[in-house]
Amino acid sequence: MQKWRATRRLLLNSYSSKSRFDHPRSNPISDHSTTISRSSSGFESWTGRIHYRHFATAMIQRNPAFSTLNSDDINYFKGILGDKNVIEDEDTLLFANTDWMRKYKGSSKLLLQPRTTQEVTEVLKYCNSRRLAVVPQGGNTGLVGGSVPVFDEVIINVGSMKQVISFDKVSGVLVCEAGCILENLVSFLDNQGFIMPLDLGAKGSCQIGGNVSTNAGGLRLVRYGSLHGTVLGIEAVLANGDVLDMLGTLRKDNTGYDLKHLFIGSEGSLGIVTKVSILTPPKLSSVNLAFLACKDYSSCQKLLFEAKRRLGEILSAFEFLDNESLNLALNHLEGVRNPLPPAMHNFYVLIETTGSDESYDKEKLEAFLLRSMEGGLISDGVIAQDINQASSFWRIREGVPEALMKAGAVYKYDLSLPVETMYNLVEEMRTKLGNSAKVIGYGHLGDGNLHLNISTPQYDDVILAQIEPFVYEWTSKQRGSISAEHGLGLMKANKIFYSKSHETVQLMASIKKLMDPNGILNPYKVLPHSIVSYS
Amino acid sequence: MQKWRATRRLLLNSYSSKSRFDHPRSNPISDHSTTISRSSSGFESWTGRIHYRHFATAMIQRNPAFSTLNSDDINYFKGILGDKNVIEDEDTLLFANTDWMRKYKGSSKLLLQPRTTQEVTEVLKYCNSRRLAVVPQGGNTGLVGGSVPVFDEVIINVGSMKQVISFDKVSGVLVCEAGCILENLVSFLDNQGFIMPLDLGAKGSCQIGGNVSTNAGGLRLVRYGSLHGTVLGIEAVLANGDVLDMLGTLRKDNTGYDLKHLFIGSEGSLGIVTKVSILTPPKLSSVNLAFLACKDYSSCQKLLFEAKRRLGEILSAFEFLDNESLNLALNHLEGVRNPLPPAMHNFYVLIETTGSDESYDKEKLEAFLLRSMEGGLISDGVIAQDINQASSFWRIREGVPEALMKAGAVYKYDLSLPVETMYNLVEEMRTKLGNSAKVIGYGHLGDGNLHLNISTPQYDDVILAQIEPFVYEWTSKQRGSISAEHGLGLMKANKIFYSKSHETVQLMASIKKLMDPNGILNPYKVLPHSIVSYS
Repeated sequence: MQKWRATRRLLLNSYSSKSRFDHPRSNPISDHSTTISRSSSGFESWTGRIHYRHFATAMIQRNPAFSTLNSDDINYFKGILGDKNVIEDEDTLLFANTDWMRKYKGSSKLLLQPRTTQEVTEVLKYCNSRRLAVVPQGGNTGLVGGSVPVFDEVIINVGSMKQVISFDKVSGVLVCEAGCILENLVSFLDNQGFIMPLDLGAKGSCQIGGNVSTNAGGLRLVRYGSLHGTVLGIEAVLANGDVLDMLGTLRKDNTGYDLKHLFIGSEGSLGIVTKVSILTPPKLSSVNLAFLACKDYSSCQKLLFEAKRRLGEILSAFEFLDNESLNLALNHLEGVRNPLPPAMHNFYVLIETTGSDESYDKEKLEAFLLRSMEGGLISDGVIAQDINQASSFWRIREGVPEALMKAGAVYKYDLSLPVETMYNLVEEMRTKLGNSAKVIGYGHLGDGNLHLNISTPQYDDVILAQIEPFVYEWTSKQRGSISAEHGLGLMKANKIFYSKSHETVQLMASIKKLMDPNGILNPYKVLPHSIVSYS
Repeated sequence: MQKWRATRRLLLNSYSSKSRFDHPRSNPISDHSTTISRSSSGFESWTGRIHYRHFATAMIQRNPAFSTLNSDDINYFKGILGDKNVIEDEDTLLFANTDWMRKYKGSSKLLLQPRTTQEVTEVLKYCNSRRLAVVPQGGNTGLVGGSVPVFDEVIINVGSMKQVISFDKVSGVLVCEAGCILENLVSFLDNQGFIMPLDLGAKGSCQIGGNVSTNAGGLRLVRYGSLHGTVLGIEAVLANGDVLDMLGTLRKDNTGYDLKHLFIGSEGSLGIVTKVSILTPPKLSSVNLAFLACKDYSSCQKLLFEAKRRLGEILSAFEFLDNESLNLALNHLEGVRNPLPPAMHNFYVLIETTGSDESYDKEKLEAFLLRSMEGGLISDGVIAQDINQASSFWRIREGVPEALMKAGAVYKYDLSLPVETMYNLVEEMRTKLGNSAKVIGYGHLGDGNLHLNISTPQYDDVILAQIEPFVYEWTSKQRGSISAEHGLGLMKANKIFYSKSHETVQLMASIKKLMDPNGILNPYKVLPHSIVSYS
């Protein structure tokens, strides 16, 4: 009877909307980054301030090989860019010097806003000859201190380069300047009947050049893959001002080394991306979302396996959260309710499908869910019957980080791990920490991306010492990644060896040295300070 | 009435097979490469010899910095690998020195078959210290002279490294040694309910390490993307013997520069790939294939646009051929017949769908085709009703290269071009050559990959001078690629500038110099001889 009731609910509560992408979800804070809308006047409009403590950069010494900005430099830049694109205004600089979490703060005296690739070339050529360090900055929405100066680096923001250059409706290839805001590209494509292959909470602020430079992940990765697959070409300016024109629009091109990949995810440390060519998928008309309960982690895994097989081509998201995550959301977020009747389930899964045919897709999903319930993989579940219900389901999953902030101090880890062993880490941490902290696990199960969060009443070095380096060591032993989608930036530059071998990091450093011999591009970031030599 | 008849045929002639991948198509020669089964005893079992003339390598000088093999070297290798893995046998060497097309022939005196990464390390370390040049060779099925020695380079084949290391049924991640034959991996995965994300005619011989090193394309690219997206990790040995362990199994890993991409498509010139980790898709149960006629190229393009939108998630192939290609196949291949009633159509399109539900997928395809006929994009068409009919449709498309060989001499070009202007090149070549040659165009329209072929009774330098460099210049003007999927190898190393800028090629050369300072890895290939300096 229990099964039948659940099954009936599944069938009754179904919907198809035109597209969930028509109705952006409320997403004040997510682990992908955050929807922010900041004016250059200051911090007033910030929301959702995170409870991180300020981490001092006192351990890092300014590279003495770098010059210090003088009035001749500023005059030179004004000559190239015009007065209004050479910004010394204190408020604007305070904003550009500080990262979104207020965790990192630099002391740059200058923000440059080039409008063309040629201007970026001239600026970098000059900085390189003068050994003036620079920070390429996009929307400044990163979470690892990669987009703000550490000391007095000159900030270069290509936000004025925001033109769509071309769009081919047959191939779906979009070519645009790097300063285009992701959300503006989404709107542009929406009118053409296409979508961006990536979707982030920060889309209202982040720039496509920054997305590419940080290899941004996000919600659509399980369906459309990473930017290494969807970015077809880039134009980038090297530290010495040389322009690399690799702005191909081709799906297939086997003519030499595919160097664009060096710039995807190198966080602006090898060059400044000025243009991007990206393959965009057609916007499909049918979207469905199910919120499901599973009795154990093994069932979640099996459900993922079956979903990949049976929903294969229409599966567009597979997210999970544990019961502790759900309770946090229910206890700390206003208006959030459990879509399922009260019962003790250990895990919850959101499955989204996106396809081209409403009735077929819905039937396919329903058949899959029925089968999974009969097979015992799902204990209970509902399918959203309208876009509001879908938004309320997403709100639970995406509201967890916000709930964590409200609950107190939180230690956050963004890990890639083998799906099979991923949740063991959560359980081991619980055993290790006992009653001293609340350990929760949720994330992008379909991508093998765990967000491990440890919630405590306040920050406590004794607890931190129990967590680190244990979490990094555990991840390393599983051949996992200590940064699935956030990058290394300043925060984790010295932790790279947990995920990469010494030989590999050494080669990265050699390539950095080759491409940026003076080390002026985004210094102190990405690579460990022990291995980067300054000349 | 005409429409109705055609429509009815569409509806009557439909089928769903379990999967076309259960029944490998006969594919003696394709443009992806060729199904070959060669014994080491010699050339007797070769089929489909291509009418290329032998291109002498007289223009290239052996790099005098390279040492010449001596008996001490051979003894050293025997000490590392054991006598039987150090091969000096003449027949075997003749085979390994000659490329599949018999177009390129080296004079190596030694073939080494390491069985472990450690052995590859020891071999390369020695070769590097002795400045003995090497050629990494996989299945030796390449089409651009990349896999055979130019002079006396030592051949290294990791074909003995053929173990599957692990397979994760939840994530679909396969980890294996580089010498695994693609077809063996296909069989292994078939038992697990998965498929490889790439499919090539040469799968019976080619090795996964070679596929990765050449960034092999093939038939599934339109669905699953390139190896830059599906390869999750590799292990590679550098020229100096250093092992780069980048054998991650994670979909998301933003910890530093993603160096594996340097090895994907660099044709063994930066290191020898020894292990591969690759994301494999689940095997889906429903496959459908339609053979369609279109009145003009514009209709083909529009049909592609609509197919991407309306079949979106189930589209797995979109191939096209012009009427001249079809006639060649009908005239020169035994047992090939036109599935459509005699009529003059200018273009033919094959659309394949692969999904998880037979009835839904079939209905979806049929609805799409009906709509396209009513809209005038399709003039006529049939859906294969069983696997034999599907094979016969594929035989037409895949038989074109074989038909070309039988028709006489042929000048072959493998180009990536913008879909919109792609066919203009075929038409321009026709105008240019008049009656002196037959110009045909076919290929992977869904990927923007044109196979331009010019058929003449015999090779003629006057005709060649009318084709080249015109074809390369035309491609270059369109920002196309002069090698969509075949690579550069020896054949096109000096033509790289048609597709890549000087600055980009210069950086490639700097990276080559950094990673292989003595230039021992696959010399004379990929990069232009003018730009690679020998120390």
